[in-house]
Amino acid sequence: MLKVGVVGGTGYTGVELLRLLSVHPQVQVEVITSRSEVGIKVADLFPNLRGYIDLPFTAPDLANLTACDLVFFATPNGTAMQSTPDLLNAGVKVIDLAADFRIRQVEIYQQWYNIPHQCPELLAEAVYGLPELNRSAIAKARLVANPGCYPTAVILGFLPLLKANVIEVNNLIADAKSGVSGAGRKASVPILLAEAGDNFKAYSVPGHRHLPEIQQLLNQCSTQPVQLTFVPHLVPMIRGIQATLYAVCTQPEFDLQGLFTEYYQQEPFVDVLPANSHPETRSVRGSNFCRIAVHRPQHQNTVVVLSVIDNLVKGAAGQAIQNMNIMCGLPENLGLVNPALLP
Amino acid sequence: MLKVGVVGGTGYTGVELLRLLSVHPQVQVEVITSRSEVGIKVADLFPNLRGYIDLPFTAPDLANLTACDLVFFATPNGTAMQSTPDLLNAGVKVIDLAADFRIRQVEIYQQWYNIPHQCPELLAEAVYGLPELNRSAIAKARLVANPGCYPTAVILGFLPLLKANVIEVNNLIADAKSGVSGAGRKASVPILLAEAGDNFKAYSVPGHRHLPEIQQLLNQCSTQPVQLTFVPHLVPMIRGIQATLYAVCTQPEFDLQGLFTEYYQQEPFVDVLPANSHPETRSVRGSNFCRIAVHRPQHQNTVVVLSVIDNLVKGAAGQAIQNMNIMCGLPENLGLVNPALLP
Amino acid sequence: MLKVGVVGGTGYTGVELLRLLSVHPQVQVEVITSRSEVGIKVADLFPNLRGYIDLPFTAPDLANLTACDLVFFATPNGTAMQSTPDLLNAGVKVIDLAADFRIRQVEIYQQWYNIPHQCPELLAEAVYGLPELNRSAIAKARLVANPGCYPTAVILGFLPLLKANVIEVNNLIADAKSGVSGAGRKASVPILLAEAGDNFKAYSVPGHRHLPEIQQLLNQCSTQPVQLTFVPHLVPMIRGIQATLYAVCTQPEFDLQGLFTEYYQQEPFVDVLPANSHPETRSVRGSNFCRIAVHRPQHQNTVVVLSVIDNLVKGAAGQAIQNMNIMCGLPENLGLVNPALLP
Amino acid sequence: MLKVGVVGGTGYTGVELLRLLSVHPQVQVEVITSRSEVGIKVADLFPNLRGYIDLPFTAPDLANLTACDLVFFATPNGTAMQSTPDLLNAGVKVIDLAADFRIRQVEIYQQWYNIPHQCPELLAEAVYGLPELNRSAIAKARLVANPGCYPTAVILGFLPLLKANVIEVNNLIADAKSGVSGAGRKASVPILLAEAGDNFKAYSVPGHRHLPEIQQLLNQCSTQPVQLTFVPHLVPMIRGIQATLYAVCTQPEFDLQGLFTEYYQQEPFVDVLPANSHPETRSVRGSNFCRIAVHRPQHQNTVVVLSVIDNLVKGAAGQAIQNMNIMCGLPENLGLVNPALLP
Repeated sequence: MLKVGVVGGTGYTGVELLRLLSVHPQVQVEVITSRSEVGIKVADLFPNLRGYIDLPFTAPDLANLTACDLVFFATPNGTAMQSTPDLLNAGVKVIDLAADFRIRQVEIYQQWYNIPHQCPELLAEAVYGLPELNRSAIAKARLVANPGCYPTAVILGFLPLLKANVIEVNNLIADAKSGVSGAGRKASVPILLAEAGDNFKAYSVPGHRHLPEIQQLLNQCSTQPVQLTFVPHLVPMIRGIQATLYAVCTQPEFDLQGLFTEYYQQEPFVDVLPANSHPETRSVRGSNFCRIAVHRPQHQNTVVVLSVIDNLVKGAAGQAIQNMNIMCGLPENLGLVNPALLP
Repeated sequence: MLKVGVVGGTGYTGVELLRLLSVHPQVQVEVITSRSEVGIKVADLFPNLRGYIDLPFTAPDLANLTACDLVFFATPNGTAMQSTPDLLNAGVKVIDLAADFRIRQVEIYQQWYNIPHQCPELLAEAVYGLPELNRSAIAKARLVANPGCYPTAVILGFLPLLKANVIEVNNLIADAKSGVSGAGRKASVPILLAEAGDNFKAYSVPGHRHLPEIQQLLNQCSTQPVQLTFVPHLVPMIRGIQATLYAVCTQPEFDLQGLFTEYYQQEPFVDVLPANSHPETRSVRGSNFCRIAVHRPQHQNTVVVLSVIDNLVKGAAGQAIQNMNIMCGLPENLGLVNPALLP
Repeated sequence: MLKVGVVGGTGYTGVELLRLLSVHPQVQVEVITSRSEVGIKVADLFPNLRGYIDLPFTAPDLANLTACDLVFFATPNGTAMQSTPDLLNAGVKVIDLAADFRIRQVEIYQQWYNIPHQCPELLAEAVYGLPELNRSAIAKARLVANPGCYPTAVILGFLPLLKANVIEVNNLIADAKSGVSGAGRKASVPILLAEAGDNFKAYSVPGHRHLPEIQQLLNQCSTQPVQLTFVPHLVPMIRGIQATLYAVCTQPEFDLQGLFTEYYQQEPFVDVLPANSHPETRSVRGSNFCRIAVHRPQHQNTVVVLSVIDNLVKGAAGQAIQNMNIMCGLPENLGLVNPALLP
Repeated sequence: MLKVGVVGGTGYTGVELLRLLSVHPQVQVEVITSRSEVGIKVADLFPNLRGYIDLPFTAPDLANLTACDLVFFATPNGTAMQSTPDLLNAGVKVIDLAADFRIRQVEIYQQWYNIPHQCPELLAEAVYGLPELNRSAIAKARLVANPGCYPTAVILGFLPLLKANVIEVNNLIADAKSGVSGAGRKASVPILLAEAGDNFKAYSVPGHRHLPEIQQLLNQCSTQPVQLTFVPHLVPMIRGIQATLYAVCTQPEFDLQGLFTEYYQQEPFVDVLPANSHPETRSVRGSNFCRIAVHRPQHQNTVVVLSVIDNLVKGAAGQAIQNMNIMCGLPENLGLVNPALLP
């Protein structure tokens, strides 16, 4: 059994990790920390875990964490960087679900997150935990930067097109829509049900923190510099992201459906739908799948990719467990085998 | 491996059965029937099952069904009664998720359901599939009538009070609230999102079909005839039932919290919350739990019980699988071990 | 034109007052105060008021308020009591939408609200602003205590039964359900969309602040002391309250439908539905109506009353304007004439 | 008083017309037709209209309709074309809220709607009822084709950019999102609350009927042929459309904010938000406004326009009444003066 710790167990990515880990056949959750809820039983805060997790929240403590084989950070940005060097030195593997190790250039991180980085020397070592892109590096990694939710949906949608070099990369558009759990479990007026319910809006159009992360990854997959417009929107639902991606196709006769189907053929968690499909977010609710469809409306130049994930699973906790499985030599889908909850 | 068939796989109880059965470690789904969708792949209708269920819907066919060990009917009322005698004769166990075998008196069934019964001779044999009440009878049963969703939530809430004989039974009130999936997956204006969304209403106050079912069961547990007022309401959510139950307590000093805790102590799927708790439907979303709290507000005579279930799981498909496990000698919670999806 | 001020314009009752007052033909809004948002334009916080309200929020200031004919307090409990004596002395009429002047016995107020009362001498003068009960007193009042949202729905439902003396009053039950705007516009985790959405629960079963308010009013209408069990629930919708009321009817043959129809015949904002109806909250969304239906299921002893209001209109801002109209000699429905928004 | 008739009063555009017309100070609704609901009182189907509309639905009848000054068709496509010639001949003005008179080329209409046109000779006369584009023609028109909901949101967003000739028109993208009332009030599984709730998806990506309508209008405003990719999405909310529009700006230093502000300065129902704003659909809920923001993220070439309307008001019934006011010489905003319902 793998001994794991969860630092920051009170947010949505934390409780989702616990939901999945509590029934993972090869994992024992040893410690769950929260500065704000010390002494409270996890199941008192999250009643779905009654009977599954009997631990209380404890204060973060290096001794407890170094007794684990692997530690997940489900904390705000800027937290994981503080303990990660010590944990790695103690031989503990680390997966950070926040952004501390996603951006390779420390200046860009500091510009967008406005936090001085505590261990920039680890940025080169950290592996961006998108298995569809970096599986073999993840398998050898000590430190994995778990991708953001929007980046996961957007990158998986653009990846085959970039690798096949069939689109103009200087004018990519990602129109992304997310349920409100993406904003986290924090007291905040704009995500109240009475504010965000029965309502729709774009936000952060001038610049969202996931933009540099997406651009970095797309650039890694492209021979030419990528220019991306990224517009996120808030959907009155709890879970789910849909990214609608637009690019100009440079090869009018290219078989895009075949490209996507073949590209993701071996992937356990990427499902390419048949031609003319429209994936819906509930088809992945609670599951680790990304479902994708590709269109070329009216047989014109513009290719449209539709990509859906559950932002808390493939966009956070599920992908983190997928990474854990890979890092620890377990079957990649262990503990991630349940179908989505529909309806 | 148990070979099972699902008759009527296109409704919500059908797809929920398939979601749970597809990862049940001791079950092989052999046949899924639907008159209306013959030839369509199940996963084309329910994309959450892509990669889990490769079968197409087939027309109901006795030969295919008698090759199963057990058949679930997830059909409208009046359907299961037509094939059940043949299946039982062929040695196949039957669980009906509709109402055909719930009401012991055929006249009452016919009065409320307006369908002539095809095999009233089986009513005495059929076991009402509430494990918390009839576990040993279920274990020996060939034919189980799976309880209705409202009856499950209401009966589990009243049961300890009736067995302990501490309430006046001539004036029970069950104010029940259900998500819209309880109305089924059928084209119908009142359950459109644009009609039922951001809206709340009572319905069927003059008389709902679950009333005689609940009364029959409560009467079985009471020494005196029970009088019940049952008012169902439609909640703008997808899954979940909460029943708020009211009764006059005859013993002012009785330890109600202790009663409930002890009564359900051994039950794998009934969770009595600590004193002063308020269960919420999402704490059981997608899971087979019933969570219950008991109150006596202001220390007065009225006892208030709060009972929540997922109407599609403990209120339908999950309880049916729990019954299957019991009938077939499997561990009662097999295939039902995942925590609820929250948020 | 009536000059009015709104103290505390940043909550939901405040913005609802402004929505209605901004198009009221006899009102000029002179001042809108908010300690937290001084200098911010009202329409920057509430974009639905762009083009309607050009004022900024200002700090509460007695001089500005005494220049008004009437001042609404849409503030937390404990605020109105601090300025009301000065305003009344200056000849300004006051309507408090919070609870400061609703409870006649100062000890009960202090027990439930845990705030020392600043002007208990005004409690006897304050008129409880339910026009259907106190219209003539409201017309002469300087100070009106605008009813709570739950009390409005519950009292209007019980009123005809109490006045006709046809129910047992020692065991009344009010099972009430509210949309989340009833919890106010404040940063709070339990009312986030990701928490309260697709979810249902009871809350405050041991005791809710609206209980003593309802009891006080029911007792005023009853010849015998009323005993009430009041259980509120949170519905995943924005606006609306439904109260489902239960009582034992003492006169089996009494024409309840006729009683309700006649009792509310002249009321401009209470609509008694035909027999066997089920009012829905959206039928009053954004409007000042209370719609009521009365049932006696299965012709038994229990009478069931269904009562719906918009908690922000008839349950708060609309009723306050109705009171203002009465206090100021305007037509009672002025500015309140629009039908509900459906769908 | 203007005598008006509403043909097809049982859908969402019909009930929305009635909600607005019932309190319009210069309108008398004379007749409301519905083939399916003859004899039913309008207020029995739509309880928000109790006390406002006392009429029953009647069968469509030319005599009754020709007694009106103006008739609205809130009917499925293909209906208005059957009676419009007779009504015009009788001197009755006609506003069709469906698509029969929107497309100028009859072949394109027939290709997309698959209905043979009954009166193609009227297509040249019909005025496309977007007041911001065609106000003076509407004022003289006998026959107005009320715009579609998506076209209204999209065209108003692109209009200033096209007129100023500052974008490349061969690669426009309209990523549009609509609440479910846009799909109409019809029994249909995909728009059930249990299907569309807590869910998000694109639909009709290969081709939506509003595409040729939008293209026709954009082409009218452009000196060069427009190429548009239009992707609609279904949002789990009742009302509201947001269109997110993308275009490549040809003039890097152009003052886009100034352009939009000035372009719509005199418009009573188009509200350009300050720079860096994000309009939300609820800010126009129930009102006739279109609110627009314009961005150029990261100061790059791509201009992003955000445009929101209430699909049933500015996208249907409200715009129809605006057109009626213009056609009949009434103040353009008469009956359309209420602020949006928020929250």
